[in-house]
Parts: sequence; structure tokens; C-alpha cells
Amino acid sequence: MARILVLNGPNLNKLGTREPNIYGTQTLSDIEKLCIDHGTSHGFEIDFRQTNSEGTLVDWIQEACDGYHGVMINAAAYTHTSLAVHDALKLLSIPIIEVHLSNPHEREDFRHHSYVSLVAAKVIAGHGARSYILGLDALAEILA
Amino acid sequence: MARILVLNGPNLNKLGTREPNIYGTQTLSDIEKLCIDHGTSHGFEIDFRQTNSEGTLVDWIQEACDGYHGVMINAAAYTHTSLAVHDALKLLSIPIIEVHLSNPHEREDFRHHSYVSLVAAKVIAGHGARSYILGLDALAEILA
Amino acid sequence: MARILVLNGPNLNKLGTREPNIYGTQTLSDIEKLCIDHGTSHGFEIDFRQTNSEGTLVDWIQEACDGYHGVMINAAAYTHTSLAVHDALKLLSIPIIEVHLSNPHEREDFRHHSYVSLVAAKVIAGHGARSYILGLDALAEILA
Amino acid sequence: MARILVLNGPNLNKLGTREPNIYGTQTLSDIEKLCIDHGTSHGFEIDFRQTNSEGTLVDWIQEACDGYHGVMINAAAYTHTSLAVHDALKLLSIPIIEVHLSNPHEREDFRHHSYVSLVAAKVIAGHGARSYILGLDALAEILA
Amino acid sequence: MARILVLNGPNLNKLGTREPNIYGTQTLSDIEKLCIDHGTSHGFEIDFRQTNSEGTLVDWIQEACDGYHGVMINAAAYTHTSLAVHDALKLLSIPIIEVHLSNPHEREDFRHHSYVSLVAAKVIAGHGARSYILGLDALAEILA
Amino acid sequence: MARILVLNGPNLNKLGTREPNIYGTQTLSDIEKLCIDHGTSHGFEIDFRQTNSEGTLVDWIQEACDGYHGVMINAAAYTHTSLAVHDALKLLSIPIIEVHLSNPHEREDFRHHSYVSLVAAKVIAGHGARSYILGLDALAEILA
Amino acid sequence: MARILVLNGPNLNKLGTREPNIYGTQTLSDIEKLCIDHGTSHGFEIDFRQTNSEGTLVDWIQEACDGYHGVMINAAAYTHTSLAVHDALKLLSIPIIEVHLSNPHEREDFRHHSYVSLVAAKVIAGHGARSYILGLDALAEILA
Amino acid sequence: MARILVLNGPNLNKLGTREPNIYGTQTLSDIEKLCIDHGTSHGFEIDFRQTNSEGTLVDWIQEACDGYHGVMINAAAYTHTSLAVHDALKLLSIPIIEVHLSNPHEREDFRHHSYVSLVAAKVIAGHGARSYILGLDALAEILA
Amino acid sequence: MARILVLNGPNLNKLGTREPNIYGTQTLSDIEKLCIDHGTSHGFEIDFRQTNSEGTLVDWIQEACDGYHGVMINAAAYTHTSLAVHDALKLLSIPIIEVHLSNPHEREDFRHHSYVSLVAAKVIAGHGARSYILGLDALAEILA
Amino acid sequence: MARILVLNGPNLNKLGTREPNIYGTQTLSDIEKLCIDHGTSHGFEIDFRQTNSEGTLVDWIQEACDGYHGVMINAAAYTHTSLAVHDALKLLSIPIIEVHLSNPHEREDFRHHSYVSLVAAKVIAGHGARSYILGLDALAEILA
Amino acid sequence: MARILVLNGPNLNKLGTREPNIYGTQTLSDIEKLCIDHGTSHGFEIDFRQTNSEGTLVDWIQEACDGYHGVMINAAAYTHTSLAVHDALKLLSIPIIEVHLSNPHEREDFRHHSYVSLVAAKVIAGHGARSYILGLDALAEILA
Amino acid sequence: MARILVLNGPNLNKLGTREPNIYGTQTLSDIEKLCIDHGTSHGFEIDFRQTNSEGTLVDWIQEACDGYHGVMINAAAYTHTSLAVHDALKLLSIPIIEVHLSNPHEREDFRHHSYVSLVAAKVIAGHGARSYILGLDALAEILA
Repeated sequence: MARILVLNGPNLNKLGTREPNIYGTQTLSDIEKLCIDHGTSHGFEIDFRQTNSEGTLVDWIQEACDGYHGVMINAAAYTHTSLAVHDALKLLSIPIIEVHLSNPHEREDFRHHSYVSLVAAKVIAGHGARSYILGLDALAEILA
Repeated sequence: MARILVLNGPNLNKLGTREPNIYGTQTLSDIEKLCIDHGTSHGFEIDFRQTNSEGTLVDWIQEACDGYHGVMINAAAYTHTSLAVHDALKLLSIPIIEVHLSNPHEREDFRHHSYVSLVAAKVIAGHGARSYILGLDALAEILA
Repeated sequence: MARILVLNGPNLNKLGTREPNIYGTQTLSDIEKLCIDHGTSHGFEIDFRQTNSEGTLVDWIQEACDGYHGVMINAAAYTHTSLAVHDALKLLSIPIIEVHLSNPHEREDFRHHSYVSLVAAKVIAGHGARSYILGLDALAEILA
Repeated sequence: MARILVLNGPNLNKLGTREPNIYGTQTLSDIEKLCIDHGTSHGFEIDFRQTNSEGTLVDWIQEACDGYHGVMINAAAYTHTSLAVHDALKLLSIPIIEVHLSNPHEREDFRHHSYVSLVAAKVIAGHGARSYILGLDALAEILA
Repeated sequence: MARILVLNGPNLNKLGTREPNIYGTQTLSDIEKLCIDHGTSHGFEIDFRQTNSEGTLVDWIQEACDGYHGVMINAAAYTHTSLAVHDALKLLSIPIIEVHLSNPHEREDFRHHSYVSLVAAKVIAGHGARSYILGLDALAEILA
Repeated sequence: MARILVLNGPNLNKLGTREPNIYGTQTLSDIEKLCIDHGTSHGFEIDFRQTNSEGTLVDWIQEACDGYHGVMINAAAYTHTSLAVHDALKLLSIPIIEVHLSNPHEREDFRHHSYVSLVAAKVIAGHGARSYILGLDALAEILA
Repeated sequence: MARILVLNGPNLNKLGTREPNIYGTQTLSDIEKLCIDHGTSHGFEIDFRQTNSEGTLVDWIQEACDGYHGVMINAAAYTHTSLAVHDALKLLSIPIIEVHLSNPHEREDFRHHSYVSLVAAKVIAGHGARSYILGLDALAEILA
Repeated sequence: MARILVLNGPNLNKLGTREPNIYGTQTLSDIEKLCIDHGTSHGFEIDFRQTNSEGTLVDWIQEACDGYHGVMINAAAYTHTSLAVHDALKLLSIPIIEVHLSNPHEREDFRHHSYVSLVAAKVIAGHGARSYILGLDALAEILA
Repeated sequence: MARILVLNGPNLNKLGTREPNIYGTQTLSDIEKLCIDHGTSHGFEIDFRQTNSEGTLVDWIQEACDGYHGVMINAAAYTHTSLAVHDALKLLSIPIIEVHLSNPHEREDFRHHSYVSLVAAKVIAGHGARSYILGLDALAEILA
Repeated sequence: MARILVLNGPNLNKLGTREPNIYGTQTLSDIEKLCIDHGTSHGFEIDFRQTNSEGTLVDWIQEACDGYHGVMINAAAYTHTSLAVHDALKLLSIPIIEVHLSNPHEREDFRHHSYVSLVAAKVIAGHGARSYILGLDALAEILA
Repeated sequence: MARILVLNGPNLNKLGTREPNIYGTQTLSDIEKLCIDHGTSHGFEIDFRQTNSEGTLVDWIQEACDGYHGVMINAAAYTHTSLAVHDALKLLSIPIIEVHLSNPHEREDFRHHSYVSLVAAKVIAGHGARSYILGLDALAEILA
Repeated sequence: MARILVLNGPNLNKLGTREPNIYGTQTLSDIEKLCIDHGTSHGFEIDFRQTNSEGTLVDWIQEACDGYHGVMINAAAYTHTSLAVHDALKLLSIPIIEVHLSNPHEREDFRHHSYVSLVAAKVIAGHGARSYILGLDALAEILA
């Protein structure tokens, strides 16, 4: 059984209440359940977390160095501002999937640069909660 | 049965021979078969095409205005230079999925801007031929 | 009788169906009729064409080197990206009128630079289909 | 009978003496007469003015809020530097036509940005004194 | 009794008619009354003026060198384009308050740079007509 | 009675010791007392906090979603670097006031862009501790 | 006897009171006397003027088209922002000398670009009031 | 006998008529003859083509993957705008020579970037028709 | 005996495992021992810490205001993104040494700007673990 | 008697032969004589030198630290590229005058930045050989 | 017999030892011999020189004004930084050929701008030592 | 015994007289003695040189290819402008230490880019004369 770390960055804990025209009405808890259910079908044990802190996000990424088989990350705002997250992701030798609910390239200019993309070559963006499902499918494919 | 137009831009006809360390060894014909097979499981009729011409790509996108239910496009180099492709995609009211074999954001700076992303909010990049499969899954989800 | 070449760039064949709030509901065929009718009053024989291909647009501009007395061009997206169209227009020694249905300067930043304007000093923009009529009037004035 | 305000910005009072290779030999007074004559054929009462002062230009644009049916403006240098003129034009709910004798996009880089174009979507440039005639035709069309 | 010069730049004389969704429905005359009333409570004699002319604005700022105890300025469009206003404000040794009805940083990019802010360290923006009241309160505090 | 959350970003806990020529000699504790006293006069219950952590600042902004009537924020350095704070502020539907002791636009270039201003349209800057008092007045006005 | 127009831009009427560490203690009236005295030795009739208005500056430059033999201009802030002044200076066929009390290139970045220098190739900067004397000497040389 | 593909981009078919002060009076047909004659002396079979279409240029470059021993390309305007041509050239493992009649670095800024140079390290520019001869000499040297 | 605070930023806790070709194989614990040993020879009591959190880094820098004689900081990724760290360092009146294992100027562009360098004028970079030893030597020299 | 060092940078030894439409027909030797003659009238001993070497120019500027009363420098191309010349000029405590034959601001963009102007605030440009005479006059004034 | 000056800039004296994967193993002395031999076949007397000094390079270019029939220059690093070399080359009225061993456009960004190309329109780059041979051929053609 | 070449760039020969608030009062001769003394303790033979000439600096760096064991370089102004120095340093295979008396990143923007840092990964800056001692210590460590 593969252990997958699913990391969520700042303000994603407010999903469902925040700008639903952009992000949809599902809560992060709904998405966690989706991931756990869908992960089961791939034989994944999902470790699903959210934090508003850049430092905690770095801590968690470092945890993935041992005992995890894959990382799926939606770093939200830190995608665009955190070189520390970028450096942490470079520590990993397991597959990394970058996911976004919306497509940052459709939004403001300051969301067009991604420190995460420079490291995690695989990107799925713009499918709403479905981005997570597609991301798990992609991990399953790689780990198979 | 849904009709899906899968469009491929310049040089993708050379897949499998070209920079295999970046793009893998599968040919475009292999990918077409993958799409047709995988499409069948979603009840899709796949119309799979490739062209090196920007104008032909625009012509084909316009065809999708009538009788198609979704478009999946890997515009390759035209992703980054073609405003005409961008304008054509804006004509469509059916779902559009942007796919890339590799993640353009990992490559040269001139591949970081996407005229396609500005229109087709859904993006799947970096999964190799698997990007097409994930793209069809995403279309199936939307059309369901 | 003066022969006038009226050239239309990519996606203009979809006029009337595409973003009518920006471009109006007239089709390109309607505009062609307008041009032929209005051209008659100036003694113009109108040769009206549209293509989605940058190369074809270049071919047609080159045709205007012989046997034509004026060119009116709406290069659409190629206005902003095609140095080849720019170079072709520099071949001509007959008057050139640049027309646009909307004013590109009101739209996205990537429509603010015009390779056509650098060559065709006369510009008429933002009058919808009426831009073509005003353009023919301007040609009539110059050729008179 | 429609009242049309025709506004001319700095240095246009020197037309005919200034750089005739760019602007032609007609004086502004000649152009005023052209406008009045041509305006009559459209049933226009032309109110034709020129000023070198940005503030006066703003004052006059504000006058157009009441009792006028259209504005045609050649803001000359203020086209490119005056945000105040831009803000004044936004006050109007009548049609606005931007005219230029030459095409600013053919000239120095600092004439490529237009604060007027951002507001007055209709542009006629590069036809010399004829730009004013075409501009009145366009206004006639809109007001008809 | 302190004399306060309240200066208003271009187009503010049209307040109440212009883009009420951004600027509210109060006229500049309403705001003048608000300032005189509120100023009285602070023992202020309010000298309230408006001009569309950059030069006049400079003249008036220079007047404040003698016999005034404070300046409150809403330079409107000249905030962003007038180095002359900036230089005039540097002549003063009395307190300067910069006010704006809306927050320019929420609007177009060309309203993000302020020549006034570089000189008048105190800024109040985005409170509508209330910005003037808060500005007078701030002056009262400084002069107390 | 209205509950107001007053948030202070990094290094503001050192006020009074840090660069007094820029920030004055009052400590943050002095400012908290000022706010509580002044808030009472408006019927405000003030919840005054400071943190050096971007993540904690995001947490606290999210708290304001429930049970608070207004937010006043001096995000200090995070004003200029934190997209996460920006995104958190967008979650709120209560009034937001941005305050600064000094005017960032008078200081280094990297303090000229504000992620907070893009969301919190009301800004008060450069009045030292008095900025907080003016900010509470502004909130009282809005909530009244 | 040669007639020389000496033009001074915004805020120069405040010389002697304004930032004396940069501009010295001489008033503009002192400089006018210096110019008249020194001009006499060259057989110059000096017409010395100052305005805070961009439009008036343009008017005065246009006056120099007739009956003047040379222009010396210190456009102050308009040096850096006024394309209208630039266009007016291009109307002249008599020699133009650009003078500055200080050297703008030693000051803020927004004083490094000069619209005047693009036209009036002769520049004398940084000599305080002496810049005017040197400027008259240069005009004398040219006119001799 | 080595087969050499000589590719010419847009508007080169008009050589001899177009801006002879820049490009000389030789036609492309003259240059083809020069190449065939000179190629013979190196034992080259010359396959000489011209197209105005970016897509066709890509097609032809791809043809060179099989049965050719070298490519000499003058991509004209596509040199500066075509990422698709760049990608196609990367497919080749035979020597590539970039030629230009004039030196693009002497001309407008938008001709200073070359997508071709990034791939075809060997460049010969500015020798007019002679550039082609020098290019064949270089190919002969490499293939020898 | 002098107390020295040695601060380490994000991901340095993973030294020895992370990109050893860039950073060497020594762990941060090895470096701590090196510092304590080498510090003893200078009579230094070393307080050695690491955190992945920007806020904690700010907290710790603030601690150095009291009871410490010097600070040596390797802010890692926060060197380049944290204005908050910059502001905290400005609070200190004791010597500050900036150290880096590698030279950031040899790496990606986004590591070329240093918010730390703007405050801590002394820099030692590129010596691997040896940078810390050289840094302590420099502190010993200053404090002697 | 005051000793004045007059320094000339690269290619000025070719004056009179080089681009006479820009620089005039006087040789540098002619200018040296002009300077010696004119200097005599001010009681100046002129030490006039030219070099094509940046290092020699730095050497000579350093010489001016002792036994000279003023420096007049036309650094030619090194004006725009030499930080070493800039640093050398900062060593001096005697007056420095920057002269240019033409006005660099009228020429190519890469001649618009001056490392010399940042140090030698006094500038005389565009008067041809006369610039040197005006420069000596200015030095005489300062030293008087 | 034509005299040709062949100039080599900094570090080219180390050819053959320096980065052979980029520059090949031939020494500059080998290249000199190649040039002399090949030059003989064209009736050229080759004057071949190398210097690390920008000033000496300028001196030598100036020598070419008299008694030489052509210049071939590989300015190496000074290609990209020396405006003085550019100005010296503008003095010449004989043909100038710019050569490079590698293609600077394939290397770092700071090697993409060429001050030499702006003057010497003929460029041959990327052919290794062969660039010199091709350059002499081109000179022979021009001089014939 | 190791031979170390210590190279000093332009204006460093004036140390002790030049801007002592930035560079201290020690002369370069003092620093040379420091280096020789300190070098002895490491068994170093110090070859200490200074030049104002970029070309001479390149010559000397090339000398280090043979018979030297390390280079320590303070290129002063050439650090920021000399690509030739950069290229010369790339010739070396012995360790290179970059030293600066002050930290260039604290000074003007044009001192923030270092051509030396791109090659010499080890940097010591801001320690005054002590930078040289630390640099020798670092070399000793590497060579041991």
C-alpha cells in the first residue's frame, strides 16, 4: 500500500465559502473524502493536510522524504511567492504532482509564476475538486 | 456518443524520434490509439488530427463549433506564439482541455506564456502520453 | 476602374457568431456585400478575401504588387504577431489602409502592438463594419 | 440639428507651418472650414476649438456633457500624456471619435500609448486633414 | 484660527455625475460644505478650490507658502502625471495631507504611482467624501 | 457593540525601539491602549493582536469571518510580500481598513506595491499612531 | 540687436526660497537681471518670462516663431513630462539652448529623461544661475 | 554526392524587387542558380525551396530528417517569430547553417532575437547573395 | 564571554541529504559542532538554531536585541523573499554576518537579490561549512 | 596660476575626420589650442591629454588629486560604460566639468546614461568645440 | 596586394587551452597561420594581432584608417561591452567583417548584444577557426 | 610553498585617501603587508598587484594559469562591467576567491551584478581590509 501526502496551502481550509464562482462549493473536507475514497481504489493511504503557514508547509514536505511514495501539492498563494517551498520540494526523490482548482494563468499576473512548477513537472489545473482525482490517477500510473 | 476533437500542433508528428529524454518514445500514432481506446470506455468518438500549420489549426478549431462536444488541444509551439489560435478557441462554447506532454514551465522562458491557457482554463501538463488520457477523463467528467 | 484588394485575417470568417458584444452581428459575407456596393459608388472593383493562414495572407499581399490600386487589410490576430505580414506589406507601393472592427487599444495588452501600423500609416478602428466603408472612402480620396 | 464639438490639442494651431512633410500644408483654419462645410451635409453644427492647455481641454470636454451630440478630438501631445483628459472623456455619454493627422504608431515610441484610445474606441489616424472628414462621417453614421 | 487650503484637481467639479459606482453621488459642493462645517469644529477656516489646470494647481500650492497652516490635496489625475505639482508641494513647510475618494491602488496600473505621495507622507484613500473629513481630523491633530 | 479585529504584522511588537525617526517612540502596547480607549467612544470592542508569522496572520484574518464587524490591519512587511494575506482578506465580507504608521510610498521601492491595498480599498498611511485612531473613526462611520 | 526669449517653467518663480541647498539663494528676479545685464554685452534684448502652466509655455514657445533670434529654456518639471513642450520646440528654426540650475541626472530617476533635450541639442546644466550666463554666451557664439 | 536542403522563408520570393537598397537586385532565382553552380563544385545536390507559410517551412525541415546531409536556412521573418521552426530544427541531427542577406542586428529591435540561432549555431549574415555561397562553403567543410 | 546567535533558515535542517553536489555532505549538526568548537577558541558561547518558519526567524532575530553580542545568519530561501527578516535585522545594533554555503549569485536569477545583504553588510559565501568558521573569525575580529 | 587638467577619452584623437556632420571639422589639436588660448585669459595653465585606454584615463584622473585646481573631462564612450572612471572622479575634491561636443541624449539609447554625470554635476553638451570654452569659463567662475 | 588587419580581443591568446568543448583545440597561432596561408591565395597581406586591452584595440582599429583595405575583427568579450570599440569602427570607410568562433546567441544572455554588429554588418559566427577563413573569402569577394 | 596571486582593480591604489567612511583608512600598501604577513603563517608566497587597466588585469589573470596555486581578486569597478575579466577567470583551474572591502549589494544598483561571482563561487565582502585575511584563510583551507 502506497502512502501519499496531499498538502494544501493557505486559505484552502475556507473552500466552499470563498469565491464560489471561482473555486466551487465543495469544502476541503469534501475533497479530503474524495481523495481518500478515490485513493482506496488505487491502494493509496492518503495523508491529507492543510496549513496557512509557509514554514509548516516546508516541515511537511520534508516529512515526505521518509515513508511516503508520492506527494500531491496545492500550495495556493505560496505557489507564487515561496522559494522555501521550492527548495523543500527539491529534497524529494518521490513523484510530485502540482494541482490547482482553477488555472492560475487565467487570473492576475502575480499568479502566473510558479515556484512549484519549476520542481514538480506534472501539473493539473482548472478542474476544480476534480484536479485532485486526476492527480491521484496520475500518481497511480507513475507508481504502477 | 460524444464527438471529441483532439488537435495536435507543430512537430508532434515527429514524436518518438524527437528528444526522447523529454517527450518519451511513443509516437503520435501510439497516442492516437491510446486516445481511441480510452475514449471508447467513455463513449467518445475521437477525431484525432495533427498539423504543422497555424492556419490549419485555426480552421480545425472553427470546425469544432458544430457537431463536437469537446476539444482537447496540444498546440505545441503555437501555444506560446499564436494569438490566432487563442481567438479561434474563444469562438467555442464546448469544453476545452489544454494538454502538454512535458511541463512548459520547466523549460525555456519563451514557453512560459500560454495563449491557450488564457482561454482553456483546464490544463494537464507533464504526464507524457498519459496527459491525453487524463484529459479525456476530465472531459468525460465534465460532459457527464 | 480601380481594383482594390480587401484582406481579412484569422477568425473573421466567424463574424456574427463570435463575441457579438464586441464585434456585432454582421457576418463577413454581409461586410463583403457592403464593400462591393459601397465600392461601386467609388468605381472600385472589390476583391474580398479571408484566410486563417499567415502564409496565405502573405501570398495575397504579394499579389497586390501587380494589377491592384489599393489594399485594405484587417489582419486580425496577425496584426499583432506577424512580422511576415509586415514584411510583405513593405513590398507594396500602392496605398494601404489598416482597418479594425473594434479598437485593439481598448482590449488586452497583447493587442496594443501592431506590425501592420508600422507600415500602413492609415488606420481606421472601432467603427464595426462601418470601418470598412470609411476605409474605402479614404482609399477613394487618395486615389482621386 | 446635431451639435458636434471638435477639439484640437497643443500645437495644432501651427498646422501648415510645422513639419509639412508629416502634417501637410493645410492650416487648422482650413480644416475648420472643411469640417463646417462637410458637417453641413450631415446636418451638423460644428463647434471647432483649439488650445495648448491641458486644463482648458478638460474644461471643454466637460462642456460637452450638456447640449452636444458628439465629440471629435485630436488631443495631439496630450493623447499620450494626459490622464486628466482621459478622465474627462469618461464623463461623457455621447459618442467620441479620436482622430490623428498622422499615425502615432509610425512615430516615436512615446506616441504609441494613447490615454484617449482607452476611452474613445473609435479611431481614425493617418489620413491628414481627411481624418476629420472621415470622423464626421463616422459620427453621422452613429447618430443616424 | 488656522487657515487650511483644500485643493481639488481635474474633473472633481463633476463629482456626483461621474461614475457614481466609484465616486458616490455627493457633489464637490456637498463636500465643500462638509469640510467647512467639520472644519469649524476644529477652528479651521477652509479655503476650498477646484481646477482642471495643472498650472493653476501649482499656482495655488505656491500661495500656501504664506498665510496658510495646512494643505489638503486631492490632485486627481495630476497625482499620477504631474511632476510640477510634486515640485510645488516640496516648497511648503506646512503639513500636507493627500486624500483620494477611491483607492488608486485598486484601479488601473497608471494610477499606482503617486508624485504627491513622495512629498505628502500622510495619505487617506478610499473613504469617499469621508476621506476629506478624516483628512481634516488628521490636520487638526498635527496642528494641535 | 461592534467587535473589531486589529491585526499587526511582523516587527511591530518592537515599536518604540525601532527606527524612532521613522516610527515614533510609542510602543505597540501604547497603541493598543489608544485603540481600546478610542474604540470605546465608538462602542467598539477591540481585539488587538500582533504576530511575526505570515501563517498566523492568515489564521487570524480567517477568524474574522465570524463574529467580527470590521478589520483594521497593519501588515507591515507582509503588506508587500504576502499573497496569502491578500487571499485571506478576500474571504471577508466585513469592512477592511489598511493602516500604516509611515507612508510606504515614501520609502524603498520594494514597499511601493501592496497586496493589501488590492483588497482593502480604504487606506490610511503616514500619521504614526494616529493612523489607528483615524482608522477606527473610518470604521465607525462605515458601520454607523 | 537680437531678441532672445528666456523661458522658465513651473516653480522657478519660487527660486531663492525653495531648497536652497540644491538651487542656491538667488531669486528668479536676480537671474533675470543677470541675463539682461549679460545679454546687453552681447547686444541681446532679453524677453524673460516664467509660468507654472504647460499650455502657456507652449503658447510662448510658439511666439518665438516670429521676431526672435534665439530661445533659452529651463522647463523645470515640464522638461521631463511635457510632450507638448517638445512638439512646440520642434516648430522653431532658431537656436534653442536648454539650461538647468542643477544637473537632473544627479537627482531622482524621473528627472533623467528630457523631452527638451531631444529637440534642443545644446545643454548647460548644474552651474546654478551661472547656467543662464553660459547659455547666453553660447547663443552669442551661434548667432555671431 | 551530398544532398543539401536550402530553405527560404516569407517574402524572399520577391527578392530583387523589394527594398533593393537593403537586399540588392538579385532575384531568388538568381540565388538558386548561384547555389546550384557553386554546390556542384562541392559535389552537392541542391534542393532549393521558398515558402511564405510557417507550417510548410516546418514540414520541409522535417523532410530533412531523412536523405539529406545538410540544411541551409534563411527563415526571414520567421527567424524572429517562429518557435515552431525552432522546434523543427531541433529534430535534425545533420548540420544546419543560418544565413541572412542583411545583418538583422543592424535593423529594427524586433529582428534582434533569433529562434533559429538558438539551434543552428553557425551563422552567416550581411553578405547579400554571397551569404549563401559562404554557407555552402561552410557546409562543405563540415561534411568533408 | 560573548554570546553569538547563529540562525539557519528553511531546509538547512536537511543538509547532508540534499543536493550534496551543491551543499556537501556535512549535516547541520556537524556544522553546529564546528561552530561550537571554533567559537570556544574565540571565547564565544554559540546559540545555534534552525527553523523553516519565516515568523520564527523574525522572532529569533528580535531576541538578539538583548543579551547577544553578534548574529550570524544563513537565511537560505528567506534571504531572497523575506522583507520581514530584513526589517527585523534592522532592529539590531550588534554586528551581523551573512553566510551562505554556496554563492547565490552562481545560481538561479531569483537568488541574486538579497534582503539580508541590504542590512548585513558583511557577507561570506561559497565556502561550504567553512563559511560559518570564516564568519565566526570575522565576528571575533569585530568584537575584539 | 591655476592648473587645469583637460581629459579626452577614446576616439577623440580622430576628431575632424570622424562623422563631421555630428562632431564638426576641428581636430583635437585645434581644440587644445583653443583651450590654451582661452585658458590664458583666465590665468589657467592647461594640461590637455587624450587616450583610448580606460585604465590610462583612470590613472590621469588620479593624478589630478595633487597639484591641479580643476578637471574638465570629455570621456566619450567611457562616459557611458566606465564605472572605473566614475570611481576615480569620486576621489577628487576639486571642481569637475563634464563636456560633450554633441548632446548624447539626442543619440542612441546606450548614450543616455552617464557615469560621469553622477559625479560631475556640471554638464555642457552639444556646443561642439565651443563646449570646451564654455567649460573653462565655468571653471574660472567657480575658482574665482 | 591588399593589406588586411585581423584583430583579436581579450583571452583569444589562450585559445586551445580554454574550454576546448566550446572553442576547439587550435591555438591562435594556428589560426594566424591559417589566415596567412589562406590570405595568400587571395593576394592578402595579413596583419594579425591580439590584445587583452580595450584601449589597444581602439588604437589598432584607428590604425586601419590608413594603408589598410579591410578589417576582420573578433572582439571577444569587448564585442558585448565596448562602446569605444564601436565608435572606433565607425571611423573606418573600408569593409569590416565580424567573426566569432562560437555563436554568441547560443550562449549567456549578456553575449547577445553586439556593439560590433551595429557597425560591421557582415557577421560570420559559429564555425570555429573556419570562421576566419570564411571571413577572408568574404573580404576577397568585396574587394574584388 | 604555495604561490598566491592577489589582484586589485581600479582605484584601489588610492585606498586610505578615498571615501574613508566606506573603505577605511588603511592604504593598499598596508593591506599588502597584512597579506604577506598573514600569508607566511599559511606558507603562502604572496604576489600582490594593482592596476587601473582592464587589459592588464586580464593579462595578470592569464599569468595565473602557470605556477600559481590560488587567486584572490578584488576587481573593484571591473567586477561589475568587465566580461573580459570574467572570461579570463574561466581559464583558470586553481581556486579563486572574490573579495570586497565593502558589500557591493549595500551600494548603488549598478554594483549589484558581479561578473566575477559568476565564476569565482567563493565571496567575502564587507569586512574592510579583514576581507583579504579571511580570503587567505579560505584559500589555505582549500589548498590544505
